[in-house]
Amino acid sequence: MKALVYHGPGQKAWEDVPDPKIQDPNDVIVRVDTTTICGSDLHILKGDVPTVEDGRVLGHEAVGTVVEVGSGVAKFEVGHRVVVNCITTCGTCAYCRVGHPSHCQSVGGLGWQLGHLVDGTQAEYVRIPFGETSLHSIPDGLSDEEVIFVSDIIPTGYEMGVLNGDVQPGDDVVVIGAGPVGLSAMVTAQLKGPRRIIAVDLDDFRLQAARESFGATHAVNSGKAGWLDEVRSLTRHGGADVVMEAVGIPATLEAAFELVRPTGRVANIGVHGAPVTMPIERLWIENITITMGLVDAVTAPTLIELIEAGKLNVRPLATHHFKLHDMMHAYEVFGQAAKNDALKVVIQA
Amino acid sequence: MKALVYHGPGQKAWEDVPDPKIQDPNDVIVRVDTTTICGSDLHILKGDVPTVEDGRVLGHEAVGTVVEVGSGVAKFEVGHRVVVNCITTCGTCAYCRVGHPSHCQSVGGLGWQLGHLVDGTQAEYVRIPFGETSLHSIPDGLSDEEVIFVSDIIPTGYEMGVLNGDVQPGDDVVVIGAGPVGLSAMVTAQLKGPRRIIAVDLDDFRLQAARESFGATHAVNSGKAGWLDEVRSLTRHGGADVVMEAVGIPATLEAAFELVRPTGRVANIGVHGAPVTMPIERLWIENITITMGLVDAVTAPTLIELIEAGKLNVRPLATHHFKLHDMMHAYEVFGQAAKNDALKVVIQA
Amino acid sequence: MKALVYHGPGQKAWEDVPDPKIQDPNDVIVRVDTTTICGSDLHILKGDVPTVEDGRVLGHEAVGTVVEVGSGVAKFEVGHRVVVNCITTCGTCAYCRVGHPSHCQSVGGLGWQLGHLVDGTQAEYVRIPFGETSLHSIPDGLSDEEVIFVSDIIPTGYEMGVLNGDVQPGDDVVVIGAGPVGLSAMVTAQLKGPRRIIAVDLDDFRLQAARESFGATHAVNSGKAGWLDEVRSLTRHGGADVVMEAVGIPATLEAAFELVRPTGRVANIGVHGAPVTMPIERLWIENITITMGLVDAVTAPTLIELIEAGKLNVRPLATHHFKLHDMMHAYEVFGQAAKNDALKVVIQA
Amino acid sequence: MKALVYHGPGQKAWEDVPDPKIQDPNDVIVRVDTTTICGSDLHILKGDVPTVEDGRVLGHEAVGTVVEVGSGVAKFEVGHRVVVNCITTCGTCAYCRVGHPSHCQSVGGLGWQLGHLVDGTQAEYVRIPFGETSLHSIPDGLSDEEVIFVSDIIPTGYEMGVLNGDVQPGDDVVVIGAGPVGLSAMVTAQLKGPRRIIAVDLDDFRLQAARESFGATHAVNSGKAGWLDEVRSLTRHGGADVVMEAVGIPATLEAAFELVRPTGRVANIGVHGAPVTMPIERLWIENITITMGLVDAVTAPTLIELIEAGKLNVRPLATHHFKLHDMMHAYEVFGQAAKNDALKVVIQA
Repeated sequence: MKALVYHGPGQKAWEDVPDPKIQDPNDVIVRVDTTTICGSDLHILKGDVPTVEDGRVLGHEAVGTVVEVGSGVAKFEVGHRVVVNCITTCGTCAYCRVGHPSHCQSVGGLGWQLGHLVDGTQAEYVRIPFGETSLHSIPDGLSDEEVIFVSDIIPTGYEMGVLNGDVQPGDDVVVIGAGPVGLSAMVTAQLKGPRRIIAVDLDDFRLQAARESFGATHAVNSGKAGWLDEVRSLTRHGGADVVMEAVGIPATLEAAFELVRPTGRVANIGVHGAPVTMPIERLWIENITITMGLVDAVTAPTLIELIEAGKLNVRPLATHHFKLHDMMHAYEVFGQAAKNDALKVVIQA
Repeated sequence: MKALVYHGPGQKAWEDVPDPKIQDPNDVIVRVDTTTICGSDLHILKGDVPTVEDGRVLGHEAVGTVVEVGSGVAKFEVGHRVVVNCITTCGTCAYCRVGHPSHCQSVGGLGWQLGHLVDGTQAEYVRIPFGETSLHSIPDGLSDEEVIFVSDIIPTGYEMGVLNGDVQPGDDVVVIGAGPVGLSAMVTAQLKGPRRIIAVDLDDFRLQAARESFGATHAVNSGKAGWLDEVRSLTRHGGADVVMEAVGIPATLEAAFELVRPTGRVANIGVHGAPVTMPIERLWIENITITMGLVDAVTAPTLIELIEAGKLNVRPLATHHFKLHDMMHAYEVFGQAAKNDALKVVIQA
Repeated sequence: MKALVYHGPGQKAWEDVPDPKIQDPNDVIVRVDTTTICGSDLHILKGDVPTVEDGRVLGHEAVGTVVEVGSGVAKFEVGHRVVVNCITTCGTCAYCRVGHPSHCQSVGGLGWQLGHLVDGTQAEYVRIPFGETSLHSIPDGLSDEEVIFVSDIIPTGYEMGVLNGDVQPGDDVVVIGAGPVGLSAMVTAQLKGPRRIIAVDLDDFRLQAARESFGATHAVNSGKAGWLDEVRSLTRHGGADVVMEAVGIPATLEAAFELVRPTGRVANIGVHGAPVTMPIERLWIENITITMGLVDAVTAPTLIELIEAGKLNVRPLATHHFKLHDMMHAYEVFGQAAKNDALKVVIQA
Repeated sequence: MKALVYHGPGQKAWEDVPDPKIQDPNDVIVRVDTTTICGSDLHILKGDVPTVEDGRVLGHEAVGTVVEVGSGVAKFEVGHRVVVNCITTCGTCAYCRVGHPSHCQSVGGLGWQLGHLVDGTQAEYVRIPFGETSLHSIPDGLSDEEVIFVSDIIPTGYEMGVLNGDVQPGDDVVVIGAGPVGLSAMVTAQLKGPRRIIAVDLDDFRLQAARESFGATHAVNSGKAGWLDEVRSLTRHGGADVVMEAVGIPATLEAAFELVRPTGRVANIGVHGAPVTMPIERLWIENITITMGLVDAVTAPTLIELIEAGKLNVRPLATHHFKLHDMMHAYEVFGQAAKNDALKVVIQA
C-alpha cells in the first residue's frame, strides 16, 4: 500500500510499504477513508521527537472501515465504520481503568503509539492495537468529515483545556492560541456555560474564525501593546477564571500566569520544548491550579454523540481538502498553515 | 498593654502599646490566653515582607477569651473562649462565599491581615475584624494547647497540602519538609486513608518526630545521595500520587516535580521568595496537577471537632512553652528551631 | 403601604399595612419595583402551609431599590437596585458557610422566611433580614424583568434540577413538568451541554413553549398511552441519565424512577404533599442517586452575570403583566395559569 | 470436581460436576483455594432469586490460583494467585469504562454473573469470564484469609456505603446493621476520617464486634425504646451526615430517613425485597441525597494495597473456618449466623 513515511528530520515520502497484518489477537486492521495532519507530525519532521524512527508511517488520526479483526475482537466486525483514537488503550491496566490511557502500561506507559512508535494512519491501511478499546463506532448519518477531528484535536482541547481547566457556568475563559487546538478548546468550552470566551492570537484570520465559528465572544490580538490589560478588562475579577495555553512556548504560558485571577486555573494544552519560569514567589499566595497533560481521548464517544445531536459542530476546522495520494501537497499547505489561512486539512481516499 | 512590636528588619520589642478598641460594629476584642510564633513572623523580621510597617504588633495565631463585642456581633458574647482564624473573613464577599477568604474583598483582597496589615495576636489583647466569621468557638473540655495550632498551621497543612493534593485512600504521599507545616500536612493526611506517608527532611530529629507522632510511615533524609531514588522505591508506581512541598525553596519544588508520578498532584504549601524552573518540556505529557495558595482556614471548625473526638492529635507540635512576658525568649528559641529541636512554641498568659 | 395579606385559607386582601422598619442592624428596607407570584403562594392560600399566620404579607420574589439600611450594612446604599433572594441567609452559620442557606441556623433552620414567617415582597416595601447576604446587585443595563426570576424560580430549576442532577455534557435529560419550575430547569440545563432535553407535560401549550423558548429538544405529552416508552426511545441507553421531577405528586416521581437508567440520577424539584412508594426492591441494584431539596439560591450572582452576558434568557417566562395595585387580578390569572396560558406574571409598581 | 449445587428453593448438594473448561479466549480457570458464603447465597436458597437455575454452582467470592488461561489473556499466567471479583467486567463497554461493571453490557447488563447466571466459586475450580479484568493479583506475603473478603463484601461496604455516602473528614456516620456488610462499611469508613461511626443493630454480639474490631466509636441497640433519639443525641447536628442502610428491609431504610440531617446522605447498601415508603412530603425540603446500587468492586486493587500496607484489617470478619469438603456444614453454621455468633465463614481447600 501507499503511506507517508518518515525518513529522518526533514525527510518524508509517499511511498509503497507492506500492508499491515494482524499481529495480536486484539488487533484490528482499518482501511483509512479520511485522515488529517497534526501539528505534532510537523514536530516529528523537524526532528523534535527523536523516538520516531526512520521508516515509520506517520499519522494518528483517521476515520476508516474495519477490514480485518483479530481473534480476540468481538466488538467490531468487518465493514464497521470507526474513528481511530489517537491514544492506544488496553482498557485493563491501572491507568486505563481510571481513564488515563495516555499512560497505558500495556504499551510501555505512553498511549501515543500511532505514527510514533508503531505505524500510523497516513496510509491506505492501518493496524490498530487493542482495537476494541481504541476505536469508536460512528452512528449512521455522520460523514467522515464531521467526526475526523474526534480522533485527537477535539478531545485534546476538551480534556486538557475545558475539563482540566474545570470550566464552570459563568466563568471567564481565556484561550491563548487560536490554532486548531485552541479553537477546539473554545468550541467545546461552550458545553460548560461560560460567560465569556476570550480568544488570543497574533493572527487576525484565526481570531476572526474564533469569533465566527468556535464560540469566542471576544478576540484580542496579542501583538498589540497592552494586550494583557485588554484581556483583563474583559473579565469580571480583573483576571480569568480559566486560562488555557494552546501554543507551547514559555511566553504564552507565562502570560497565562499573568492573566489568571486568584483561585483560578491555568490549563496547559500546548506541547512544550523548553522549560518555563514559574513566578512561584508571586503565585504561591494566589491559590491557583495548574494542569497539563497528553490527551486521553476517553471523551470521544460523548463528543461523537454531541456532534450527532447537533450540539457540537467542529466542521469549520476543515479549511482545506485533499485526496490521499496528494498527501505531500497536503503537508505543504498545512506546513504553512498561517500563510494559507489553513486550520486543518482533510485528506480522503 | 504589652505587645511584640515590629520596628523594621531585625528590630522587635516587647513593649507598651495602647489597648485595642472596637472600631467597627463587627469587631471583637479578645484577650490572648495562648499564642505562638509562625515561620512567617521570622520572615517579617528578616525584612522579607515589606508590607509590614514599623510599629505593627505581630502574630496571627491565638486562643483567647472574648472581652468586648461590636454592636453588629450576635454570635459571640463576653467570656466566650475562641480560636482566632489567621485569615480575616467577612463572610459576604464573592471570595468568602465560596470558601476562599484568603482573598477576602472586604479587607482589600488579602485575608492575611493580623500581624501583617493590622495589629496581631502576640499581645495581651487583640482586635478581630469581622469577628463573627473570623473566630471559632471551642467546645468545653479542650485545653488551649489542644487547639492553638488550628489558628493557622494545621489548616495550612490540611487545606494546601491534603485537600489541594486531593489525597485519596490508597495514595502514596510524599511530604518534603518535616517542619511544623509539613508535619501538619502529615498528621491530617491520615484523615484521607493513604497507603504511605513518606517524610523527607535534612533533620533526623524532625524525621523521627514525623514517624513517631505525625503518621509518617517512612522517612528519608534528603541529605543522602540517591534520596530521590529511595523515595521512588517506596512508592507503588515509581512515583508518588501526591507530593507536598513544605519548605519554600526552588530545589524542593523541583524535587517534587521529579517525584510525582504521571497523573499525580504536586501541592505546594511553602512560602516562596524566588521563581522556580518548571520543566514543562518534560511535564506537559505527564498529566499532573500543581496547586498552591494561602490557607483559607475554613476547615477550622471541622478540625476542632476532630480534635475533640480524639481523631486528630496535634499536641506533639508543642515542644517548648513560655509565658507571654517571655516573648523575646520564645522568639530566640523558635528562631533557632533546628538547633533547639523545636517544632512550635506555646506562649501563655 | 399597600400589601397582599393572607387571612387564612382561601382569604387574602390587597390592603393597608404599616410600613416595614429596620428591626436589626443587618436589615435592609427595599422598595418593591417588580414582584411576581409563586406556586407556593397558591399552596399557602389553599391552607397547605399551616406555618403561615393570618396577617402575613405574602411573596418572596422581588426586584427593588434600597431605601434604608441598618447600621451593620456596608455593602448596600440607598438607591442600589437589587434582586431579593427568596432564601434569607446570615452568611455565617454552619449551613450558610457551606452554601446551604436553605437551612440557615440564624433564622431557625429554614431559609424560607419571606412571605412565610416574616412579611414578604407582594407589597410596596419589604424588610430584608441579613440584607448584605440576602440581596444581589443588578448590573447596569438589565431591566427588572430580565432578573426578577432570579429571586427564586431560575435558581430552583438550576440548583435542585441541573446541579443536583449533575447534568454532564452529552447527557439525556428528562424534565417531567413544563411549568415555570420545569422550564427553569430546562433553560439552565443548557449551560451543561446535554445531548437532549426531553420535556414531559400534559399541556401542549407548555410543551410548545419548552421547545420554542427553553431549550427542550423533544416534547412528550404524558397524557398519551405509551408515553414512558416514547421517552425511553429518545434516550441512548434505554433510559435517561438525569430525570428531573418538577410537578410534586407521587405519580410523576414514580415515573422518574421508571425513566432513569442504571447509574443515572433523579433530581426532585417538586414540592410534595404526600409520600411516594419507592420500589427499592427493583432500584437497589440500579446504582441510581436521588436528590431533593429547597433552593439555596446561592447561584443567583452567577445567573445574573450569565443573563447580562446574553448567555441565559429567562424572559419568556413572563407571559402576563400587571401593576402592583392589580395584585388581586394577577392572582386570579396566575391561579388559573393553565387556562390562561400563563407561565409567570410580572407585577410592577 | 466437587461443587455446591443449587437444586431449587431449599435444595442444595455438595456433589460431582464436570470440571470447568475454557469457553472463550478471555476465560481464565482458577483453582479455588479459599471461598466463603454470602448472604445472597442464602437468598438464592430461599428462592428469592428466581433467575438462578437448578444445577447452578453457587458462590461469587474466592481466592485461588490460575490453572489455565484463554488465548486472549496476557495479564495472568498459570500459578498466579488471584482474588476473584464478584462482578464480571469486560473492561470495554460503556459501563465498564466509567467504573460501573455492575451493569456490564457484555454480560447482558448485569455484572453479577458468578454463582447466579454462570457457575460460581463454591467448587474446586471455577471459570472466570473476562479474566483479565475480573481477577486481581495478590501481593506476596498476604494470606488468602487477609484478602478473601475483597471479593465482595469489603468493596460492597466501601463503594455502596462509604463512597456513595461521600463520607468526609469530621462526619457523623450511622450504620444501621452490624452484619458483615455493615461492618465492612464501618471498617472502611475509617479511611475517610469521620468524627464518629455509630453502629446500630439488634444483636449485642455484633455491636460489640463493631466497637472492638471495625472502628465503631459508639453502638446503639435498636431494640431499645428511644433508640432513634439516642442515635441523634450522638450527632453534632441533631442528625447524621451520612446514614448507611445495611439490612435490606423497609423499617431500617425508613429509620435512615429519620436519622439523616438536612443536607446529609442516605446510602443504601442492603438488598431489598419490598418497596419502601419515602416521606417525600417531609424530605423534599431537607436537601438530602439517597444512593443505592450493586457493588462494582472496582476499588478492589486499592483495598488490597491498603491491606498489604497494614492500613486496613478485615480479618476479624472471619469467625469460623471450614474445609472445602465441609461446605454443607459451613452453610449450616452461616445459615444461623446470629445464633452461632458468626460473621463470615472461611472455607479452604
